[in-house]
Amino acid sequence: MNEFAFAIHGGAGVIDPANFAPDRRQACAAALRGIAERAVAALAAGRAALDVVEQAVVELEDCEYFNAGYGAVLNGDGEVELDAALMDGATRAAGAVASARRTRNPVRAARAVLDDGEHVLLIGAGADAFAAARGVECVDPAWFVTDERRVQLAAAQAEGRVSLDHDERYRDDARGPAWSETERKSGTVGAVARDRAGHLAAATSTGGMTNKRPGRVGDAPLIGAGTFADDASCAVSATGHGEYYIRRVLAHDVHARIAYAGATLAAAADAALAEVGRLGGTGGLIAVGRDGDAVLPFNSPGMYRAWYAGGRVHVGIYADPETD
Amino acid sequence: MNEFAFAIHGGAGVIDPANFAPDRRQACAAALRGIAERAVAALAAGRAALDVVEQAVVELEDCEYFNAGYGAVLNGDGEVELDAALMDGATRAAGAVASARRTRNPVRAARAVLDDGEHVLLIGAGADAFAAARGVECVDPAWFVTDERRVQLAAAQAEGRVSLDHDERYRDDARGPAWSETERKSGTVGAVARDRAGHLAAATSTGGMTNKRPGRVGDAPLIGAGTFADDASCAVSATGHGEYYIRRVLAHDVHARIAYAGATLAAAADAALAEVGRLGGTGGLIAVGRDGDAVLPFNSPGMYRAWYAGGRVHVGIYADPETD
Repeated sequence: MNEFAFAIHGGAGVIDPANFAPDRRQACAAALRGIAERAVAALAAGRAALDVVEQAVVELEDCEYFNAGYGAVLNGDGEVELDAALMDGATRAAGAVASARRTRNPVRAARAVLDDGEHVLLIGAGADAFAAARGVECVDPAWFVTDERRVQLAAAQAEGRVSLDHDERYRDDARGPAWSETERKSGTVGAVARDRAGHLAAATSTGGMTNKRPGRVGDAPLIGAGTFADDASCAVSATGHGEYYIRRVLAHDVHARIAYAGATLAAAADAALAEVGRLGGTGGLIAVGRDGDAVLPFNSPGMYRAWYAGGRVHVGIYADPETD
Repeated sequence: MNEFAFAIHGGAGVIDPANFAPDRRQACAAALRGIAERAVAALAAGRAALDVVEQAVVELEDCEYFNAGYGAVLNGDGEVELDAALMDGATRAAGAVASARRTRNPVRAARAVLDDGEHVLLIGAGADAFAAARGVECVDPAWFVTDERRVQLAAAQAEGRVSLDHDERYRDDARGPAWSETERKSGTVGAVARDRAGHLAAATSTGGMTNKRPGRVGDAPLIGAGTFADDASCAVSATGHGEYYIRRVLAHDVHARIAYAGATLAAAADAALAEVGRLGGTGGLIAVGRDGDAVLPFNSPGMYRAWYAGGRVHVGIYADPETD
């Protein structure tokens, strides 16, 4: 039994090594490592899992390499639509926002929804207004937009690609146009933790898919699909082709396999992800268990990730962390 | 084993008999019976479960007695925000919309999302635009608003009540102000079916809560929370205090107890609803199983419902159908 546990992800997808500049790759890995090491230090100091996953996701949102918060991808109207959720495994309290456009850190808006306790999911302008009323920092929608994302959207629109077709495209054409690595991943960020008191928590945040249809919501902000936590079983944050995760109710499926079938965390996570794959979906998930284990399976070529095991933080992008 | 199975609900809640005019009560019961009898005839004729639950929910949406589609409750801005979902147990295909304001029958928009297959959940103006592009009938937002709902909103606002507090209020004050029975119920409609080919489907639709915060989304449009279907286990549609259903991932929880713990449909539904109650939530659910059973548990004083059993349609509002 580990006294505490922690893992983060920064999205899963193709992340073609041949098209991934070494300095960018190192910068991504360093960002993941720094965020994970700060979270682990906080857990070691006795901080609550819910606070730690929120803070880690704030840092992932603020990092432009990852598709959440600042630097999120743009929808078909050239705007960001931001989704986030977090859940407290001790109480099953949860908060989520979808299609926020003015909240700098959507996971903080989700936390405000959780703390308020009346609702679980707020969407659109109502989510931004609620967050603002609770003192969560608001920004102009243009603040989120980076030059790189503008270029990606223009390329996607020029080719008539929409939202979720990039995985299929790459399956057929892995050496296709030289899109940046961030274009290719199914962009989501997330964190899961078990604290020293034995409480579990999960948080997820995303900007969705480049050139997505306005109003499309994936699994990230949906409790049970992309985000779930229960002290009795596990905390889960998913990343990938969200529609498949919704149809599989992926995060709750991991829980249910542990709670009702007596599966281990690893077996439950693998089996739940395999069902996503059976529908045709790709991506991954991170999960920590009540005993402090951490697992990070994925069925895509890569998943940005960092986790705590054996007394230190590990970072991985491709299947074999040693080669990253 | 029953060759086919069917159940609908029109919402759960207090529905105080002392405050429920007999003619209204009879009209509600007659509406439920008519919708269920038409659905049963369609199933008997071999129609697909997915089509039958969609049509039943269209009829429930069109009926002003129920809080979905025409006659839906108004949010704090005096507007309707309509949510709906449906799921095909044969393929786990799903479609949902949230916060639609212009789609006459939100469940038809959800069906269009399902049939399109690219996304699962569309929200807000994007949902309405998608539905319109697919030929789903659009109306002016004012079309949905009935005089009764305007009166309810004015009363709620005059008393400073918001969204979800009516259940708590009635727990303390069951003989409080003479609000209409529709005010008191947690308004949702839904249908579940098993067809003669053994396929299961579920659909749910709602206008949410009177005077709710704009942008609040409950469990109805969330796959796994308020709506779920899998041919291997069951089809579920929930109604009640949506936030608790989201936190329990109620509909998928019924499935998981059958699929992973080997529970019967009745035991799974009762146990999942009991967990909602343990969090403090009230409401109910309807479910049909792979063997053609139908169950309709609720922990609120009443739930509008109709179901097929023993070769005929039954209608209930309170706990004992014989007294309804």
